[in-house]
Amino acid sequence: MIPDTVFADLALVLDKRVTRSKSDLEQHGRSEAWHPDTPPDAVAYPKTTQEVSAIVKICHANDIPIIGWGTGTSLEGQTSAIHGGLIVDFTQMNKILQVNDSDMDAIVQPGVTREQLNIELRTSGLMFPVDPGANASLGGMAMTRASGTTAVKYGTMADNVIGLEVVLADGTVIKTGTRARKSSAGYDLTKLFVGSEGTLGLVTELTMRLHGQPEKILAGVCSFDDIDSAVNTVMLAIQMGIPMARIEFLDVSAVQAVNSYAGSEFPLKPHLFVECHGSDTGVESQIETLSELIDDFGGSPLEWASKPEDRNALWTMRHNAYYACLALKKGCVSVITDICVPISNLAEAVVETAEDIEKSFLDGPILGHVGDGNFHAVLLIEPDNAEDLAEAKRLADLMAKRALRFGGTVTGEHGIGIGKKHFMAQEHGDAAWDTMGALKTALDPKNIMNPGKLVR
Amino acid sequence: MIPDTVFADLALVLDKRVTRSKSDLEQHGRSEAWHPDTPPDAVAYPKTTQEVSAIVKICHANDIPIIGWGTGTSLEGQTSAIHGGLIVDFTQMNKILQVNDSDMDAIVQPGVTREQLNIELRTSGLMFPVDPGANASLGGMAMTRASGTTAVKYGTMADNVIGLEVVLADGTVIKTGTRARKSSAGYDLTKLFVGSEGTLGLVTELTMRLHGQPEKILAGVCSFDDIDSAVNTVMLAIQMGIPMARIEFLDVSAVQAVNSYAGSEFPLKPHLFVECHGSDTGVESQIETLSELIDDFGGSPLEWASKPEDRNALWTMRHNAYYACLALKKGCVSVITDICVPISNLAEAVVETAEDIEKSFLDGPILGHVGDGNFHAVLLIEPDNAEDLAEAKRLADLMAKRALRFGGTVTGEHGIGIGKKHFMAQEHGDAAWDTMGALKTALDPKNIMNPGKLVR
Repeated sequence: MIPDTVFADLALVLDKRVTRSKSDLEQHGRSEAWHPDTPPDAVAYPKTTQEVSAIVKICHANDIPIIGWGTGTSLEGQTSAIHGGLIVDFTQMNKILQVNDSDMDAIVQPGVTREQLNIELRTSGLMFPVDPGANASLGGMAMTRASGTTAVKYGTMADNVIGLEVVLADGTVIKTGTRARKSSAGYDLTKLFVGSEGTLGLVTELTMRLHGQPEKILAGVCSFDDIDSAVNTVMLAIQMGIPMARIEFLDVSAVQAVNSYAGSEFPLKPHLFVECHGSDTGVESQIETLSELIDDFGGSPLEWASKPEDRNALWTMRHNAYYACLALKKGCVSVITDICVPISNLAEAVVETAEDIEKSFLDGPILGHVGDGNFHAVLLIEPDNAEDLAEAKRLADLMAKRALRFGGTVTGEHGIGIGKKHFMAQEHGDAAWDTMGALKTALDPKNIMNPGKLVR
Repeated sequence: MIPDTVFADLALVLDKRVTRSKSDLEQHGRSEAWHPDTPPDAVAYPKTTQEVSAIVKICHANDIPIIGWGTGTSLEGQTSAIHGGLIVDFTQMNKILQVNDSDMDAIVQPGVTREQLNIELRTSGLMFPVDPGANASLGGMAMTRASGTTAVKYGTMADNVIGLEVVLADGTVIKTGTRARKSSAGYDLTKLFVGSEGTLGLVTELTMRLHGQPEKILAGVCSFDDIDSAVNTVMLAIQMGIPMARIEFLDVSAVQAVNSYAGSEFPLKPHLFVECHGSDTGVESQIETLSELIDDFGGSPLEWASKPEDRNALWTMRHNAYYACLALKKGCVSVITDICVPISNLAEAVVETAEDIEKSFLDGPILGHVGDGNFHAVLLIEPDNAEDLAEAKRLADLMAKRALRFGGTVTGEHGIGIGKKHFMAQEHGDAAWDTMGALKTALDPKNIMNPGKLVR
């Protein structure tokens, strides 16, 4: 609970931009996935770093939990106010502060979304490629170490955030990183905060690495007779070093979901969605090698979407695949898995997962960014159905154990939040997880920054 | 000082592999650069993680400083036993434990050198590209976040270490990272330890990312009439996205040093040493674009070293450039600078630096990995000459301030150690440097891991 006197102090800083209105609290209590609603006690809409610092100081003095909020599209309950407190919504800190064309970087506020940045960059010849599907905020994407369809070529948020401004738990403001391409000047604080899910501080500014818009883009789809062939094609393509920009897998159930949601007519077979970026000759040579591989594994010839509008339609379908999966079963919610394994174990991991789901009474379309070894089963459950939830958790647990057996991770890109916390000790071992806990305690001794998430 | 009883405890673990022999202490007291000799109290040569853990526990119980040692090639006094204590020399932990060809990674002990790994990989089609010049140990390279000539294409140690085994200050052993290509599972401990200079723990195992050996390699040199033209060529090449594998700058004084050290006959002009990796057609197209650029800036046509032996000779010259510079002035030592600036400020930064050195009574050849915006002036001073040292520090200070003014860093790849500690607050601000200190205290409350380095 936030006492009235503390709320009054916050209002002295933010005036009407801190609120306890029912609609604001409800809106910020919702989660994209199966996690129960947990409205905060209040919601703040700061406009400046100074305001963020001021309200964090007030919360620090009064032991009020603080949870950052971008677009609310995280999938593991990262923004759930499980201990109540103040949600700091960054929607009004959405300015692009600098674009440095010649250094290929940009400085932005955390509420800027990836699409907003790309619209700004449209005429610059540059782009920001990290693409988790949702039009998430860059602050939120940094905090979950998001990635998505293009990570196979351009890396994740870990590779593309080069500096931060952070408000620490006591309200102190620090800057991390530089605009140089590399540095050996001490601990890499930027990389520590990226992926920290708001448990170490609130990000108020980000320096992003940008990339040149490719001279040529070509996207296409192909289908295979079985999962094995599709995934083995990807494994070999990666091992051969074909620099694909996107290579996405959809199983039959995911294809079915996309067809019925988007009105497409893909054959009911496992599919790969592919995109290549490069020079004219570079893209041609990628496609040639890839086509041979697809053919070797009995895949259908690539159908090209060379026009921008066709390409956009294709990736919109892929981006909406999560909602398409949800639409398979009316009123359902999802338990989303997110394992990532070494490439050489990918086919085995996907096939075993498909077999588990086949044997289960739940539906669970499989899709993922297989070029990274990362895939998701979207396990569909009725809300408040304990049996469904237990079965989904059993399947998710099998997948997590499989990932760890192969030397992989329980989450490639969605993060831990509250949904995957029980896997942390299994993945890292108690001592390493405790090490994370020690870092958290060092920077946030009062445990007010997104308490209950990620660490023990 | 290490009390005799503690030494006896260490000897119970390591037998004769812990020593106080004068030659061992002297050898481990030396520094590559100008820092004074500081022999430790004892040197240990563990063979296993268990042994490292056991000796760290003994040191922890007795407040004995612990300093890791790879090949002793760090440049900022990172291995200096300034508070005495035990140097843990990893020379005997030099096994390559696993090479996973199909996942393109390898697990190695910290004493494995980069050349040793590449010899092992020779027939695999894979390579480990990070190349700081010296045949350093991979453990040491990880600890200083080293990079070198190939970082422009393949990244630094931060990009190429994907997992670690670490012995913490109390002897606890943790594993960080996975063999998956990405993960969102909590704080990135791997990236926190990489670049920590042994102040947070001792690394006992590393999982390294490997890269495919390029189909074609072509290296060459060209000269320019002035520094500006050479560096502007690099700036434009980077901005155009030419994916060069190496692009190195040497000023007239550095060329002179190389000529007299290696017997080469490069014209006394600023030079670029270039290398391109890729497919036959890829390399050709890189070279074509690059050659046009060089011509635009009035450079001489690229002279190619296409045979492997010529190419090796070229890079051996570059790698020995540091020793070549030292040889310019008999008996001298060096204060080495290492700034890294955003690419768009590179020409200005190099030209201003050259002007400062021109006006000084010291010699200071300039060379560097300019594709990253990183360059060094090797300031040559007489040992124990206070006037020389003061002048070198003045020049180094001017360079550091220049780097920070341009939004860059005081050290691109050499690290902080004791030599650059006084720049930390300037680069990061007091609060961010204190944040590093808080992390250090959290993981090493007794301050026994390489005390006096990097943090306050």
